[in-house]
Amino acid sequence: MLGLMQDWPLTVDRILDHAKNWHGEREVVTRSVEGPIERTTYGEIHRRARRVSSALLNLDVKPGDRIATLAWNTADHIEAWYGIMGIGAVCHTLNPRLFPEQLVYIINHAEDRIIFVDLTFVPLLNAILPHCPKVERVVIFTDRAHMPETPLPVVDCYEELIEGASEDVQWGGFSEETACGLCYTSGTTGNPKGVLYSHRSNFIHTLLGLQTTVMGATPKEVILPVVPMFHANAWGIAFGGPAAGSKLVMPGARMDGEGIYELLESEGVTFSAAVPTVWQGLLGHVRQNGLKFSTLRRVLIGGSAVPESLIRAFHDEFDIEVVQGWGMTETSPIGTLSNLTPELESLPYDEQMKWRVKQGVPPLGVELKLKNYAGQEMPRDGKTYGRLMVRGPTVAGAYFKGEGGEILDNEGFFDTGDVATIDDHGFMQITDRAKDVIKSGGEWISSIEIENIAVGHPKAELAAVIGAAHPKWDERPVLLVKLKDGETGDKAEHLDFLKGKIAKWWMPDDVVFVDDIPLGATGKIDKKVLRERMKDYRLPEAG
Amino acid sequence: MLGLMQDWPLTVDRILDHAKNWHGEREVVTRSVEGPIERTTYGEIHRRARRVSSALLNLDVKPGDRIATLAWNTADHIEAWYGIMGIGAVCHTLNPRLFPEQLVYIINHAEDRIIFVDLTFVPLLNAILPHCPKVERVVIFTDRAHMPETPLPVVDCYEELIEGASEDVQWGGFSEETACGLCYTSGTTGNPKGVLYSHRSNFIHTLLGLQTTVMGATPKEVILPVVPMFHANAWGIAFGGPAAGSKLVMPGARMDGEGIYELLESEGVTFSAAVPTVWQGLLGHVRQNGLKFSTLRRVLIGGSAVPESLIRAFHDEFDIEVVQGWGMTETSPIGTLSNLTPELESLPYDEQMKWRVKQGVPPLGVELKLKNYAGQEMPRDGKTYGRLMVRGPTVAGAYFKGEGGEILDNEGFFDTGDVATIDDHGFMQITDRAKDVIKSGGEWISSIEIENIAVGHPKAELAAVIGAAHPKWDERPVLLVKLKDGETGDKAEHLDFLKGKIAKWWMPDDVVFVDDIPLGATGKIDKKVLRERMKDYRLPEAG
Repeated sequence: MLGLMQDWPLTVDRILDHAKNWHGEREVVTRSVEGPIERTTYGEIHRRARRVSSALLNLDVKPGDRIATLAWNTADHIEAWYGIMGIGAVCHTLNPRLFPEQLVYIINHAEDRIIFVDLTFVPLLNAILPHCPKVERVVIFTDRAHMPETPLPVVDCYEELIEGASEDVQWGGFSEETACGLCYTSGTTGNPKGVLYSHRSNFIHTLLGLQTTVMGATPKEVILPVVPMFHANAWGIAFGGPAAGSKLVMPGARMDGEGIYELLESEGVTFSAAVPTVWQGLLGHVRQNGLKFSTLRRVLIGGSAVPESLIRAFHDEFDIEVVQGWGMTETSPIGTLSNLTPELESLPYDEQMKWRVKQGVPPLGVELKLKNYAGQEMPRDGKTYGRLMVRGPTVAGAYFKGEGGEILDNEGFFDTGDVATIDDHGFMQITDRAKDVIKSGGEWISSIEIENIAVGHPKAELAAVIGAAHPKWDERPVLLVKLKDGETGDKAEHLDFLKGKIAKWWMPDDVVFVDDIPLGATGKIDKKVLRERMKDYRLPEAG
Repeated sequence: MLGLMQDWPLTVDRILDHAKNWHGEREVVTRSVEGPIERTTYGEIHRRARRVSSALLNLDVKPGDRIATLAWNTADHIEAWYGIMGIGAVCHTLNPRLFPEQLVYIINHAEDRIIFVDLTFVPLLNAILPHCPKVERVVIFTDRAHMPETPLPVVDCYEELIEGASEDVQWGGFSEETACGLCYTSGTTGNPKGVLYSHRSNFIHTLLGLQTTVMGATPKEVILPVVPMFHANAWGIAFGGPAAGSKLVMPGARMDGEGIYELLESEGVTFSAAVPTVWQGLLGHVRQNGLKFSTLRRVLIGGSAVPESLIRAFHDEFDIEVVQGWGMTETSPIGTLSNLTPELESLPYDEQMKWRVKQGVPPLGVELKLKNYAGQEMPRDGKTYGRLMVRGPTVAGAYFKGEGGEILDNEGFFDTGDVATIDDHGFMQITDRAKDVIKSGGEWISSIEIENIAVGHPKAELAAVIGAAHPKWDERPVLLVKLKDGETGDKAEHLDFLKGKIAKWWMPDDVVFVDDIPLGATGKIDKKVLRERMKDYRLPEAG
């Protein structure tokens, strides 16, 4: 027997309709790419987004067509986003931080027809578009006065494009399963793969994000999303802000500590979201200049593990609450949040830290489990490692065009590629990337955990741990050490240093002194390069 | 083009799974019908709910079968609720406050096969079940020691029924459109009509309710739902509590001020929800005994308009925030909430009151419009009346078994039967029931508004306004006055009293002095009886 409630498809155009109808005068403030601060409202964004839709229909854009954006967080970007999605086209957010050859691959793979671009990235497009034959047209987010010179063949000025376009356009009216957004993961191996969000997944994700324990947006909140719309949908804020009627403050191209601080203070921002490095930069600026935060009271930090020092700095120096989040492009991205339970919050602050540095607990709608590499579910004891698997209506079921093949296990869980623990309070903690974990005798050894201890040896400048093939145990850990200038290496000394700090069976089978340990763009050890360099290495006893 | 996110049906069994997995040790405290306070957890409720499912399957319950409950807010009731819904059966919450003949009608109309009942209501069932031939069995929420004598033919003891039942049962796995709950409206005209909720509508409603501006539940919140599970799903708290991992405090049969106050204090309740009369009773008890609230910080009040005096009492005397809500059985029930915007909150408290007494603004997912009786949409000026129409995924599309026929307009909006205004801040205010509004010259006149003024005349004990047929204007208002003992009536005097306080064209065409104005069970004027009594009345000039 079916229920008798209304058929009301969960399509994201209804989110901006809601903002217009009930929070139409609420401000959206942008630091424009051209420079000045610009002010608009949800009502005005709604009108202009509808003009974007009309303009796209005039350009013969059809449902399912991919329309890309290469842009900062601005009100214009929000208009284009809803204008594209409202008519059933797919908004493909391009990440300008990728290598140009990756962007070319992504644009061609997605078959983007039109690209909306900020002035900042026009030179980048000039360079790569000759390699993207299917792109028909570029729309530059600016007015006639600021239009740049460009060798690109078909270029529109955004303000001119939408100026004459009609607001009378049909939004929605299609299945909630319709594709709505496309975002490629910058995978560390292989080509980038596209996550194709549906209207339904984005609408449900918006509701997940509005919970008090997640973003908790309200009309009283003033939100500055530092996290870009091209980075996992700005963690949902471009939907959640309008849905809740919160004032949005969009930082545009200025992502430095000074620029962000200025907006936080001048616009009365109460909540913000960014990766740890942005917060480090901001705190640096604030401390250096002896400043205070007058309105900011809560920050969401994610994208990589949040250092304890950052959590303490916000708490001790500024009385600002840090919520750590974990997620990924494939999870829309909300996965877990480090909100403490009342039991944990009643502990002294120092003892709380054991949980505050973890990635936390999922909200309703996100299911997590840990499994070992034989596929068995692992216990939640805070110690046993397992591959982190995730399931839910906001989690990818497949990549665009079937890249990567079947990505779910037989229970429908997506493999995050992370290794994690879950403790008896339900707090999940990422311990390693699965490919960096060492599989030894049917159990897992965390390379990162050993590295973090080994680098503390007074003679070590850098330390890395990789798995080496072993006839009996499958793999065994090997410690690579780059010594500080002028030091001389003694293997036993480095192994002794680990004793008592890790389980006996985690103890590396060998120590190798190396001249260099390669680091990736984000400062993390590049294990891929390291493994390639060490491919001829054999363990002493396995020799 | 469809998105590529996971297929994860929104079924409510996943809500209790989530509570077990991530908040399994969180307490649910019940004042049992037998007397003592009982403590359990979401983990334990999950296990017992699965046993309820097994027991029902053993009794050959099939998907779509209606299984009723006639019970207070208790942990047992939550177990039965999820145990029924988890296997695709329909949980039909019976309202024990209805007249016995209405209950008989509803049980027969719903074709309930089994009824779970609290000890309190066994005598009621003894009386009515002989008239309900399709009910096969009654399950009494108690243990063997407390089983009462009853003449009913097939009776089970709840604890015995589930004691031996297996926890190994399949939940969910069906379409999210599957029916899940059934609740009849106690309509003022005609027979009660059933609203048949789906798993999807209840799941989405749960997410709506978790927003900070609605319930805003978190694991730190301790929630006491005074509003019964048989009254529009306890406004969603039986879903929202487990979904957020909040501690629940279930008041059982003790709904008096003293009983509620005791639990609020002993269990550290932070948030509660009830109708105005419950709060009046509670405040009476607290004032009379010179008590304080030590943990309560926010109350949701709905079910009927919240008097200004109640909002002020909580604010001025106890520093507790009142959020007024509007909704109905047909809206699951969340409709609007009176959360103030930052602009309104910056006003002095006295000026805020103009908005605090209104029913407020809808959350994302609830659409509202006002239309006049020609079907045109009315402006949002805070003055123009319109019939309140509502649309969304948590709003009824039809009544059970098609009762009442087509209930949506041509745009898919449900007619609430209320007349309301919406102001330029988006705040909706119910002004009248549509059937009590007087239609005059294509415009609406609020009978309630005139009554509220007219009753202030020093000689009036009660005042009522009804519409009388008019050849030109369709209807014109007539003021009925019941004078205080010993007073003598003068029509002009009562009309003069209204002058300047209402629009000229609202001025009643006649005043009729009556011996009696009939009141309904809730103390409101019974317009239906009044109109029947006045059916032969003719306006002076229309004579």
